[in-house]
Amino acid sequence: MNVEHLHMVPNLTTALSGPLQHIESHLLDHVVEIETWFRHQWQDTPAPFYTSVDLRNAGFKLAPVDTNLFPAGFNNLNPAFIPLCIQAIQSAVEHVCPTANQILLIPESHTRNQFYLENIAALQDIIRKAGFEVRIGTLKTDDDDANDVVLPSGRRLILEPLQRSGDKVHVGDFTPCMILLNNDLSDGRPEILEGLSQEILPPLALGWSDRLKSGHFEQYKQVSSEFASLIGIDPWLINPLFLRCGEIDFMKREGEECLADNVATLLDNIRHKYAEHGIDREPFVVIKADSGTYGMGIMMAHSSDDVRNLNRKQRTRMAASKGGSQTTRVIIQEGVYTFETWGSEQAVSEPVVYMIDHFVVGGFYRVHTRRGANENLNAPGMHFEPLAFVEPGIVPDQGLAPHADVNRFYAYGVIARLAALAAARELAHGNR
Amino acid sequence: MNVEHLHMVPNLTTALSGPLQHIESHLLDHVVEIETWFRHQWQDTPAPFYTSVDLRNAGFKLAPVDTNLFPAGFNNLNPAFIPLCIQAIQSAVEHVCPTANQILLIPESHTRNQFYLENIAALQDIIRKAGFEVRIGTLKTDDDDANDVVLPSGRRLILEPLQRSGDKVHVGDFTPCMILLNNDLSDGRPEILEGLSQEILPPLALGWSDRLKSGHFEQYKQVSSEFASLIGIDPWLINPLFLRCGEIDFMKREGEECLADNVATLLDNIRHKYAEHGIDREPFVVIKADSGTYGMGIMMAHSSDDVRNLNRKQRTRMAASKGGSQTTRVIIQEGVYTFETWGSEQAVSEPVVYMIDHFVVGGFYRVHTRRGANENLNAPGMHFEPLAFVEPGIVPDQGLAPHADVNRFYAYGVIARLAALAAARELAHGNR
Repeated sequence: MNVEHLHMVPNLTTALSGPLQHIESHLLDHVVEIETWFRHQWQDTPAPFYTSVDLRNAGFKLAPVDTNLFPAGFNNLNPAFIPLCIQAIQSAVEHVCPTANQILLIPESHTRNQFYLENIAALQDIIRKAGFEVRIGTLKTDDDDANDVVLPSGRRLILEPLQRSGDKVHVGDFTPCMILLNNDLSDGRPEILEGLSQEILPPLALGWSDRLKSGHFEQYKQVSSEFASLIGIDPWLINPLFLRCGEIDFMKREGEECLADNVATLLDNIRHKYAEHGIDREPFVVIKADSGTYGMGIMMAHSSDDVRNLNRKQRTRMAASKGGSQTTRVIIQEGVYTFETWGSEQAVSEPVVYMIDHFVVGGFYRVHTRRGANENLNAPGMHFEPLAFVEPGIVPDQGLAPHADVNRFYAYGVIARLAALAAARELAHGNR
Repeated sequence: MNVEHLHMVPNLTTALSGPLQHIESHLLDHVVEIETWFRHQWQDTPAPFYTSVDLRNAGFKLAPVDTNLFPAGFNNLNPAFIPLCIQAIQSAVEHVCPTANQILLIPESHTRNQFYLENIAALQDIIRKAGFEVRIGTLKTDDDDANDVVLPSGRRLILEPLQRSGDKVHVGDFTPCMILLNNDLSDGRPEILEGLSQEILPPLALGWSDRLKSGHFEQYKQVSSEFASLIGIDPWLINPLFLRCGEIDFMKREGEECLADNVATLLDNIRHKYAEHGIDREPFVVIKADSGTYGMGIMMAHSSDDVRNLNRKQRTRMAASKGGSQTTRVIIQEGVYTFETWGSEQAVSEPVVYMIDHFVVGGFYRVHTRRGANENLNAPGMHFEPLAFVEPGIVPDQGLAPHADVNRFYAYGVIARLAALAAARELAHGNR
């Protein structure tokens, strides 16, 4: 990762500017209705503590493809937006734990990933600057000593083993009222965090041990449908279609027929929408584990044969997921082309929007020079350059063109908030 | 006013860096306690809707000298901080009027001042971008037609005459639930705004027709005393001493003895504090109208003779105030030197911090090349260059020196919030 990159913040060019302007124009024409609608939604369903949303921008379509409730890229945000993060953290904690002045941050347990540790250091720094004392308590440490790490950025992290006394967790004598999880619980709900009297945010139920992507996109379908009727667009323009199957065992080839049939059905549905909107592209679908996996166990399919003809190596890859468990449920999601490219190399890029509480605080692009427009940009071992947004995504300007930077980023902020709202409803409705 | 200036944002040098570092170091060492304390204070006493605070930075002392609850310089803020303003407006309206989606903004009535109209246009733009419909209703218009103004910045304002129907005010068919006052009511409480069923913010009782500066600084004295004991400093380092008299008629020379006596007493008190802190400076006091006046009716005094020897012209000036009323009450305030200077000319400058709700959103310096360190920088007809802050004032960094930009601006943000808290208590305690 090239740190200078963070500060270059060039503009991106969108290959297909025509049809997206349609969405952006609608959003711009309805800023007051949109913001009023969101205000009411957040009153009914408080936003998750923090959220990052992977978007794909096909020009004709702008949609979320993944919603992460334990965001891991705070170090990639534009340093100019840190004050926005500080202000949003202050609001967020006021909403959920008004008396807190200390916060215990629980990171992922794979603590050797330097990029991830830079994220934790950035997050700790933001929370400190917001006026809270923050210490870091790690699950599953091999020893009882605090681990003092100096990162490539020069930031220093002290990782302390998480301990429990009665119904409270602590590190040393630091026993705060609020626990902030930055661990997506792919390995399951840790016993040490069950039944605590302290407030855990986000709640354990929003970890991947309980949550399903299909549950999220079920809520998102409803949210985007309500929103689309508010501003008068076809909900498909912001909603990726999806289907799911029951139990699947890739190694034993059980459940394969359901998967192949659903791939065929979904491709037909997309082809139908493409025809309706005059889009001359080949549809594709993405098959991924229904509980989150950092981009493991993901494949693209352009026909049902792509599923039937998987070789042994491909099956093994699909069966594996982050926590090492066998994939048994998958979601089959409409593939959304990404037509935002950067620089003379026309590098493929995918926007990631960051939110704290219901406030959009910026984001970055995953830029990849060796991938195509219909490929997944968050795959295992993939190399991407984070490219911080030049605008925070909350400054719509009707005096400028719909595709002006501020307005495109505003559109990203709106779609990301719809995904965060869907996540909020997951928790509220227990539809997981 | 040179608009390019807004974007230059150079650093300022503080002539006396030693003693202020003492205050800044204490603030930096207590960020968590300070922010926790503020969080509790805002829960007890909600912040005013918006506030601007004039500070004076003497190096050895950092104190507010005026707190404006109808701020008129949003056009002078650093454009980079507009997202912070947008986020803060969203929080503020959520706190006070969660269902509002329309806001009626009532400006000052002297609507020919282009600088002031630029402020109204900037404020309208911020509120619009926060997702509200905003229209502008003016008091006391000569005709019933809307007034369409294009400003030097290129911004366009439509000023509509304010109308009343029953217990609601409106412009045309626009009848919002929330009225935002940007009129300090120096001319009195307008009949048209009395007894409305709509929410008026800030409330009429915070206008200069009800409020007294001495009432504000009485609350500030208490606030700064509580705060000083929290972080362990002499409260005088952040609190300007003051005294007041009963009725004064400058033209008839009534009340002059009380004024002269209080000037002498206050100078003695300051001299005592200077000696205690080893400050080798000549004390001075500022005499100003006890209700706000845009810097009219202000004088400096270095001895009680300065008051006794006023000539007729000086008396006339002290007796006049913005609304044309005779000054009858004055506040005698400790003069705080300003030792922040800018550029090779060593231009004198005074920071002004802006807040929305309890969020610091930036500020600017009044920079003046033809004034001394002990002169008032907000005087009638005075010419100043607004110089936007390079930092928003909410990003303390213990890893940097106490006098580093981010930390100096954090100190400004803390002292400004103390003044805003004093204003919040004015309203809550009815001590006006």
